[in-house]
Amino acid sequence: MSVSAAENAPHIGALPHGPLGTIADVPGVTVGHCTLDEGAVQTGVTVIRPHGGDPFRDKVPAAVSVINGFGKSIGLVQVEELGTLETPIALTNTFGVAAVAQAQIRAAIRANPRIGREWSTMNPLVFECNDGYLNDIQALAVGSQHFDDAYAAASAEVASGSVGAGRGMSCFDLKGGVGNASRVVEAAGHRYTVGALVLANFGRLPMLTLDGLPLGRMLSERAAATANASTTNTSTSTKPEQGSIIMIVATDAPLDARQLKRLSLRAAAGLARTGSVYGHGSGDIALAFSTAYTVPHEAQFVTLPPLLADERLDPLFRACADSVEQAIVDALWNAVSVTGRDGHRRLSLHDSAPDLSQLLNSAR
Amino acid sequence: MSVSAAENAPHIGALPHGPLGTIADVPGVTVGHCTLDEGAVQTGVTVIRPHGGDPFRDKVPAAVSVINGFGKSIGLVQVEELGTLETPIALTNTFGVAAVAQAQIRAAIRANPRIGREWSTMNPLVFECNDGYLNDIQALAVGSQHFDDAYAAASAEVASGSVGAGRGMSCFDLKGGVGNASRVVEAAGHRYTVGALVLANFGRLPMLTLDGLPLGRMLSERAAATANASTTNTSTSTKPEQGSIIMIVATDAPLDARQLKRLSLRAAAGLARTGSVYGHGSGDIALAFSTAYTVPHEAQFVTLPPLLADERLDPLFRACADSVEQAIVDALWNAVSVTGRDGHRRLSLHDSAPDLSQLLNSAR
Amino acid sequence: MSVSAAENAPHIGALPHGPLGTIADVPGVTVGHCTLDEGAVQTGVTVIRPHGGDPFRDKVPAAVSVINGFGKSIGLVQVEELGTLETPIALTNTFGVAAVAQAQIRAAIRANPRIGREWSTMNPLVFECNDGYLNDIQALAVGSQHFDDAYAAASAEVASGSVGAGRGMSCFDLKGGVGNASRVVEAAGHRYTVGALVLANFGRLPMLTLDGLPLGRMLSERAAATANASTTNTSTSTKPEQGSIIMIVATDAPLDARQLKRLSLRAAAGLARTGSVYGHGSGDIALAFSTAYTVPHEAQFVTLPPLLADERLDPLFRACADSVEQAIVDALWNAVSVTGRDGHRRLSLHDSAPDLSQLLNSAR
Amino acid sequence: MSVSAAENAPHIGALPHGPLGTIADVPGVTVGHCTLDEGAVQTGVTVIRPHGGDPFRDKVPAAVSVINGFGKSIGLVQVEELGTLETPIALTNTFGVAAVAQAQIRAAIRANPRIGREWSTMNPLVFECNDGYLNDIQALAVGSQHFDDAYAAASAEVASGSVGAGRGMSCFDLKGGVGNASRVVEAAGHRYTVGALVLANFGRLPMLTLDGLPLGRMLSERAAATANASTTNTSTSTKPEQGSIIMIVATDAPLDARQLKRLSLRAAAGLARTGSVYGHGSGDIALAFSTAYTVPHEAQFVTLPPLLADERLDPLFRACADSVEQAIVDALWNAVSVTGRDGHRRLSLHDSAPDLSQLLNSAR
Repeated sequence: MSVSAAENAPHIGALPHGPLGTIADVPGVTVGHCTLDEGAVQTGVTVIRPHGGDPFRDKVPAAVSVINGFGKSIGLVQVEELGTLETPIALTNTFGVAAVAQAQIRAAIRANPRIGREWSTMNPLVFECNDGYLNDIQALAVGSQHFDDAYAAASAEVASGSVGAGRGMSCFDLKGGVGNASRVVEAAGHRYTVGALVLANFGRLPMLTLDGLPLGRMLSERAAATANASTTNTSTSTKPEQGSIIMIVATDAPLDARQLKRLSLRAAAGLARTGSVYGHGSGDIALAFSTAYTVPHEAQFVTLPPLLADERLDPLFRACADSVEQAIVDALWNAVSVTGRDGHRRLSLHDSAPDLSQLLNSAR
Repeated sequence: MSVSAAENAPHIGALPHGPLGTIADVPGVTVGHCTLDEGAVQTGVTVIRPHGGDPFRDKVPAAVSVINGFGKSIGLVQVEELGTLETPIALTNTFGVAAVAQAQIRAAIRANPRIGREWSTMNPLVFECNDGYLNDIQALAVGSQHFDDAYAAASAEVASGSVGAGRGMSCFDLKGGVGNASRVVEAAGHRYTVGALVLANFGRLPMLTLDGLPLGRMLSERAAATANASTTNTSTSTKPEQGSIIMIVATDAPLDARQLKRLSLRAAAGLARTGSVYGHGSGDIALAFSTAYTVPHEAQFVTLPPLLADERLDPLFRACADSVEQAIVDALWNAVSVTGRDGHRRLSLHDSAPDLSQLLNSAR
Repeated sequence: MSVSAAENAPHIGALPHGPLGTIADVPGVTVGHCTLDEGAVQTGVTVIRPHGGDPFRDKVPAAVSVINGFGKSIGLVQVEELGTLETPIALTNTFGVAAVAQAQIRAAIRANPRIGREWSTMNPLVFECNDGYLNDIQALAVGSQHFDDAYAAASAEVASGSVGAGRGMSCFDLKGGVGNASRVVEAAGHRYTVGALVLANFGRLPMLTLDGLPLGRMLSERAAATANASTTNTSTSTKPEQGSIIMIVATDAPLDARQLKRLSLRAAAGLARTGSVYGHGSGDIALAFSTAYTVPHEAQFVTLPPLLADERLDPLFRACADSVEQAIVDALWNAVSVTGRDGHRRLSLHDSAPDLSQLLNSAR
Repeated sequence: MSVSAAENAPHIGALPHGPLGTIADVPGVTVGHCTLDEGAVQTGVTVIRPHGGDPFRDKVPAAVSVINGFGKSIGLVQVEELGTLETPIALTNTFGVAAVAQAQIRAAIRANPRIGREWSTMNPLVFECNDGYLNDIQALAVGSQHFDDAYAAASAEVASGSVGAGRGMSCFDLKGGVGNASRVVEAAGHRYTVGALVLANFGRLPMLTLDGLPLGRMLSERAAATANASTTNTSTSTKPEQGSIIMIVATDAPLDARQLKRLSLRAAAGLARTGSVYGHGSGDIALAFSTAYTVPHEAQFVTLPPLLADERLDPLFRACADSVEQAIVDALWNAVSVTGRDGHRRLSLHDSAPDLSQLLNSAR
């Protein structure tokens, strides 16, 4: 699995991507994975650091759009109120949220022993998807150490696919996981980068739309026509969705929390273009943050750079939608097939359709 | 222009449509248009009646999702609080909202002389888009009578295209307007209909995606390649969007206001699939209502039918997204070219691409 | 009626008020009233100008808290999305909203003829309460001219009581209307002013709490004990509330829209301390704006002054709550008794309790 | 400490309380505490069971109002989306949230082994306040067992004061903790009960208003006048607030989630009347639930009883505000003085003002 296969997967839309094609194209952003891959335990933790410093001391402007709130994330209430995040962003499985939040608390106290004493407490920020099809989620296998390991591994080389929190995720009845993308745009005469990292764990195969092509329908029909169709992979197609997608959007454009909330909502457009209608059982949540400035933990005043005017946001909105759509494609493109609990197996997109390139070309 | 050209336009998605292919497939829903078509005045009023009775006495469960709030609608605050609408839904141009709201007040008082005296006041509900490219919006041409005329014209035969509030609207730099669609789904063992009526006035041509095909890109490139490309039609392509879309979603499924809010948000998915990223200057608002029961104006208790369980909503979510996407296509498909103020002209999709059918076929 | 009787009414809380004791203590803010006082027509328009310029060209950061959304205001959707207001703030009766919105549109076009043509449209911002007890609201007596008159009358000398939009309002079964107050606080080493103007039209007499004293209960019990108690004034006490309160909060502190939303919510605290529990039929809405900077209509970037840090907001929060409570007292204190439609009469607080000062002193 | 001292504390407002004067006056609701009281560890867990069954199988209609979102609760996103809660409600200290959430997950899996396998995952619901002044919150002393113990202890005999999650809480610089109250009202011809349980941990002494009396100012002035004033108790008065209040409101009235959201917001009115202006650093969150019906985990349809009409809600709104105000008084009234980490000590209200009854009487 390469760091980025963005040069191979179809490029979504007309905007160019950044040099890495990952969320790390936004300067300062790094990502680390801790992957648990032992039999029935197929899960992990992914950590996104918004900058190289301590986000508790130097908070980051941020906002959240809850597109469908069937989800168990922690930390959103305070982000909504204060418009900042103050920890690394962590992703894990649904029942790992508590352990990772605890790890965030411990790490913050280690870095700032005054937290909870002279200072206020801190706000853990953990997102989740349910990887229970492949992973034995009841095992509660994620522990504090896995957050620490993912945090320690953070770098600008960002892996996609069946790694970190994405290890056990499913997407369109295929193997899902972590996906990355970026877009570079010009707004108000300046160049800005928008990067996205998604944890993709949603959808039923027939819904899958890849760059406008009804790939899921094509694969479903082929599978139905094959007598020896993989029953493993299609068995859940008629079940209601129990997935989710977490979409983390980073930008170096100077935006405040209100504008970041607007930006984060455009993740819903990119998500829809892959076939999602934000299913009932899918926790679809987008968080956007800016690296253009930080908000100090203790201050009298907060000095902002000149903010991009709202009427200049359209290029960023498009970059957000395109990056999220591309990141979902990236997750599918880079995932490898995984077998987990009770012999459950998810085939990767490539294993499901070894003739994928021909399929895509013929459909154009 | 036919009542519905849905049999001709591409059918979006896998769900079947209802017999009419309009919002009036939801039993009891009727629509009336009043079209103003005199030189620089190219505008109008469209009225959607949720049922044949008096919605003030028999209110209708409803909810709104503001996807992008660059808009001047009136009445949303109370719908959000109380989960009901109590007037017909009116659509018009941005500067016609006040006149139409006043007309709704007058009509409600005529029907219920106790309003504002023994009874509380009533809540006008008027949505708008800005048709200022074709229509001389500063003329403030919309008056009370036009609401009354549209209301009187309401029937189950619903016209689409350059009619009513859609008269002056533009969409993807083409002629936009009113669009209709419906889908029939099965949920929890019952058949339900979802209908959509949109007032489509958003987008730049290169963004237009029709049933997954990059039609806008194809038309843009062709226009660029043609020396004598219509400058009228493409002149605004580089300007920021100042459009909007209003998406009215009706269903006969028994849903309460919370569930209708969930349903209404799925309009964002259908909208995104046509190429929108909810541009900064676009007021993108969806309202969903149910005809399955009414809420009496004065009561001690409100008796609801058994409500569809949330985990059964996915078919309705899909129907909402597909209906909204189809209704946008329907608006483009049925609109006729219109010339308005200062000689501004919007070509219809068919006039822009007389070879549309071939284009669509060749692209598949 | 004096411009301010704040020196006479009990002073709420420990914070000092500004020199005027009105919203105009925030430098640049002016207010104008147009009062309609002819028989059954007892109503009016009040206009608050956030600064002396054109708010369309120089928009003002603003935010809204809808505490109870039983209300028919116009303009809130866009304020929520963009965090600015771009017209003077207008207050009137429920059925006057449309006429005043239309007047705002006409005035904005007069000042900026490109609106709706080269430029986008503009967002009228009109708040309302239902004065239908005293005023023949069905007469739709408010017209465009009354907005223009109120706008023209705007000055830093701000009248309170039965004036402007407050002419026909009732509060705690007494005469309500317009109320003003201000507080001066120190935050982050600087002095800031918070001013409030309320349109007070809510409550039943027994609920009235004045500076912590159960004055309403005292007056109710006295009225009940009197054989010849005014039936006019108490007749509606058992009816459900159909009132409302609009609370406009201004400050010169440098806050962005997110912070102003936080500030505006603290109006709910001041309102609660007067006895309100935000009754079902009461449209209770607060808008806060800052005069510390403006947002240009067309710009690439928006330059903000250093913003007050969130952890320094507590003095402003207190000032907001105290100002709103004081402004409600001010409305009651300055209102004069009014007779309106069908002989309905509301006694002022002073006419209801000529011995008010003794009552207040004895209760302490 | 008695189960309820409501007969001794001033009775807030005109509505009668239920037989117990606690949240358990709502039939079926029970509460359990687990108190940790060992040196520097002064904290605990409180569990509210909405009914005697399994809330995962029989979910409870519920809604949340975030009045000030400086808080780290978990579970609110899904309550907002689905309008139900599916676990017991747990309260603890800020850094205990993760452990208690983990315990809720374990308990739910024990009761329903299909969770996370055949069934979807479940949504832990844990609220918190920061008890770091008295409690060594960095010790992370709260564990899974403490949730289980509190759950096992749940009964209709509900203790208030320095117990359970309230053990280490401070309120108005006095000893805070758990408070209870209830009110009985008539609406639409039926009797309903509203009960409140608060975790009170907010406020500075000068702000304290007890039943309209400025008790905090009186005590502050007395303390200032005393040379040997307790420095322990007043030392933090000038610091910004780092407290919070969680307000759980139960009712047997038949309300849906939208109505419960309206009800929950009225907690803000009761809170304000005690002197709070929802300080920046205070996480002020209210959750309301109804016991009138349940929502089954798996169903095609959900059958509701006739719902109380919105225009009949005012008595319940008043009951909510009065119950919350009373519950805060109850917390102060029943708390005992506690000494915790680093010798920090919070005096109870009674220990701070041994002449409290005389003070209250003299002030009337």
